[in-house]
Amino acid sequence: MNRVEILSQGDEVITGQTVDTNAAWLSEQLVLMGFDIVRHSTVGDSIEDIREALSQASQRVDLVICSGGLGPTDDDLTAEAVALLSGSPLEFDAQALALMKDMFVRLNRSMVKANEKQVYLPKGATRIDNFWGTAPGFIVSYKHTLMAFLPGVPGEMKAMFEHGLKPELLKHFDLQPSRRIIFRTTGVGESNLQEKIGKFEHEHVCLSYRAMGREVQVKLRFSAQCKAEELDKHCRYMADILGDCVFAIEGWGQGPVGNLAEVVVALLAAKNIKLVCAEGASGGEFMRLVSLSAKGMSFIKKGYYFAEPNDLHEMLNLQGGSPEEPHYFHLAHTLRSTSQADIALIITPFDSVKSKEGDSIAKSAQCFLVSGHGQLCVSDQVTGSDAYCQHAISYRALNLLRKYVL
Amino acid sequence: MNRVEILSQGDEVITGQTVDTNAAWLSEQLVLMGFDIVRHSTVGDSIEDIREALSQASQRVDLVICSGGLGPTDDDLTAEAVALLSGSPLEFDAQALALMKDMFVRLNRSMVKANEKQVYLPKGATRIDNFWGTAPGFIVSYKHTLMAFLPGVPGEMKAMFEHGLKPELLKHFDLQPSRRIIFRTTGVGESNLQEKIGKFEHEHVCLSYRAMGREVQVKLRFSAQCKAEELDKHCRYMADILGDCVFAIEGWGQGPVGNLAEVVVALLAAKNIKLVCAEGASGGEFMRLVSLSAKGMSFIKKGYYFAEPNDLHEMLNLQGGSPEEPHYFHLAHTLRSTSQADIALIITPFDSVKSKEGDSIAKSAQCFLVSGHGQLCVSDQVTGSDAYCQHAISYRALNLLRKYVL
Repeated sequence: MNRVEILSQGDEVITGQTVDTNAAWLSEQLVLMGFDIVRHSTVGDSIEDIREALSQASQRVDLVICSGGLGPTDDDLTAEAVALLSGSPLEFDAQALALMKDMFVRLNRSMVKANEKQVYLPKGATRIDNFWGTAPGFIVSYKHTLMAFLPGVPGEMKAMFEHGLKPELLKHFDLQPSRRIIFRTTGVGESNLQEKIGKFEHEHVCLSYRAMGREVQVKLRFSAQCKAEELDKHCRYMADILGDCVFAIEGWGQGPVGNLAEVVVALLAAKNIKLVCAEGASGGEFMRLVSLSAKGMSFIKKGYYFAEPNDLHEMLNLQGGSPEEPHYFHLAHTLRSTSQADIALIITPFDSVKSKEGDSIAKSAQCFLVSGHGQLCVSDQVTGSDAYCQHAISYRALNLLRKYVL
Repeated sequence: MNRVEILSQGDEVITGQTVDTNAAWLSEQLVLMGFDIVRHSTVGDSIEDIREALSQASQRVDLVICSGGLGPTDDDLTAEAVALLSGSPLEFDAQALALMKDMFVRLNRSMVKANEKQVYLPKGATRIDNFWGTAPGFIVSYKHTLMAFLPGVPGEMKAMFEHGLKPELLKHFDLQPSRRIIFRTTGVGESNLQEKIGKFEHEHVCLSYRAMGREVQVKLRFSAQCKAEELDKHCRYMADILGDCVFAIEGWGQGPVGNLAEVVVALLAAKNIKLVCAEGASGGEFMRLVSLSAKGMSFIKKGYYFAEPNDLHEMLNLQGGSPEEPHYFHLAHTLRSTSQADIALIITPFDSVKSKEGDSIAKSAQCFLVSGHGQLCVSDQVTGSDAYCQHAISYRALNLLRKYVL
């Protein structure tokens, strides 16, 4: 059996100062490797609590992965707790010290006496080297359970898992890895996707959904028993049934990958399309998403933020006084021609949507797109926090761009 | 004793599909109320695992708070696990059903048969009403341990804790609540803050740090034994020693509260200062932070995004060809006068900072500020992910504005 418990350790986690993201990350990796996760536990900086948690876990599972408590300070007690549990003393590890000294030189930091504590590991432990920080990790066997210890800093923990621990686990356990394919969609809600897909119960494949803002991911996890043709068949079926709300597929096929902004940016770059935009409702979020994905590509050189149509009118230096009614298509044409861009996009400011009783129940905005081949406009209505509304309307605009360019 | 275990429940948590934020949130609330958190545990959708986890917790602690597993589907098993543990059958709760029917009417959704399962609660349980969703929570006593059950949806869980569970806990336990004061700082790193503060060991007060991007929070937690004068003395000392890197203090004094953008926006609004900005390096993030905090206030009406100085030159419709060397102060003056703003702010695009060997080791940008009273410029150097760099330079610009306006 390949049953796992994840143990997180530290006062900052147990008191809620830090949200534990390590447990979820480790679980996701381990599930894909073929492990069965049965419990997460967290204890504070108490040697007895750590010992007790490890002892209890050893009765439940075949593998414990513990993160945290390997630092240089007095409240880092994990190695001592392991020594107490197993009855093996801590031993000085000369190679670990040499590696740590190198690291301090590279970081241009001075090593203090307290750091030496970190290279005392339980006798008989297999060391996991840390090339990303100072605390080495280690693996011990206790009764029938393998126990691995990694630092709590997420960056170090992840790198050491990938490069040090994972190869060891593949040696120790007879695993049936599964394969995960993610269909990334936008523009259709989770319940509508569920309705589209309907009953999807097949051997060797497990369907799940994950909604993140306006992106809904449809995830398929295929067990090792699933044949390649069967996997392809299920993925083709899913791609067909979902249709053009899928903007990327991770792990299968030759289509686009990445988040929506990355996909749109790649499309624009591939077709050498220059974009200019003016955003109201999205308040900077549209430009932020695009500029983050652009990574120095110069296809978007100018952007405008405006609170009211008149402000955009002024920014574009248009003559003829303020327009009583905003002529967004006119503004978009001007924007496009003055910027020598191929596509101009305007996201209007939000209007309040009111109920019959006059309460504000939602916000609405429009996206206007003008190119050399035509023009179009879509309306959108959103509810939620201000940050969510900015994000949602930005996603709407990105998806409009994606569909237009395709 | 007031020892607590937090139990989270659900396959999506145990497999790492969802990061468990409930445990941290609950822990933080409970620590402030005076509880001592000793463990977090998570199990999947298995009736036996839930029963076992509850049984084990009852041997360790005085209070268990469990979130998740109260939904309408077959894999929501928490109430059944409680019935199995305690030997009390599940009973139909007519009041809970009436409340649930009301909720469906308000949500304009139709109730399905499966929902009725949610109003079967363990016999003898105290119901916690859910006015924010459909699943009621409940409290039971098992041996010497109080056990509370809340839905896993964070918004419902938090509201039910606050309005339903917390008052019950205050009745059941004799608590010594602590008080938390947060000094929110920016512009000084965590280790420098630690050096500034030095040794801070006093009875009744506990110091901790929390770094979030360019904000570092200095947190003081005062136990109930701390007298008001003593608390004031420590807070005054801290405010003095930290100086003007503190932009807000939560929980003490009459100064500003909120995040950096909110503080800056409040300052600008109070002084009726109109702002215009043009951003390069921050890529939309500066405007996003400001517009999120502005909440409809019109002190910022126009903003520009530009990739290169020439682009801003063109957007401002300046004559005289492209400047060979960017004259940002000139651009900022033009920006200010054409926008009829009080303050113009320009964040330049990033330049790469290279090592002697020619490797890119950091990014640098400048912030230029021009008002009717003068002009100033600061440089900043950042490293990290693109998103972090955008955020960091935006914080630098906000802090410049804050100090200038003060």
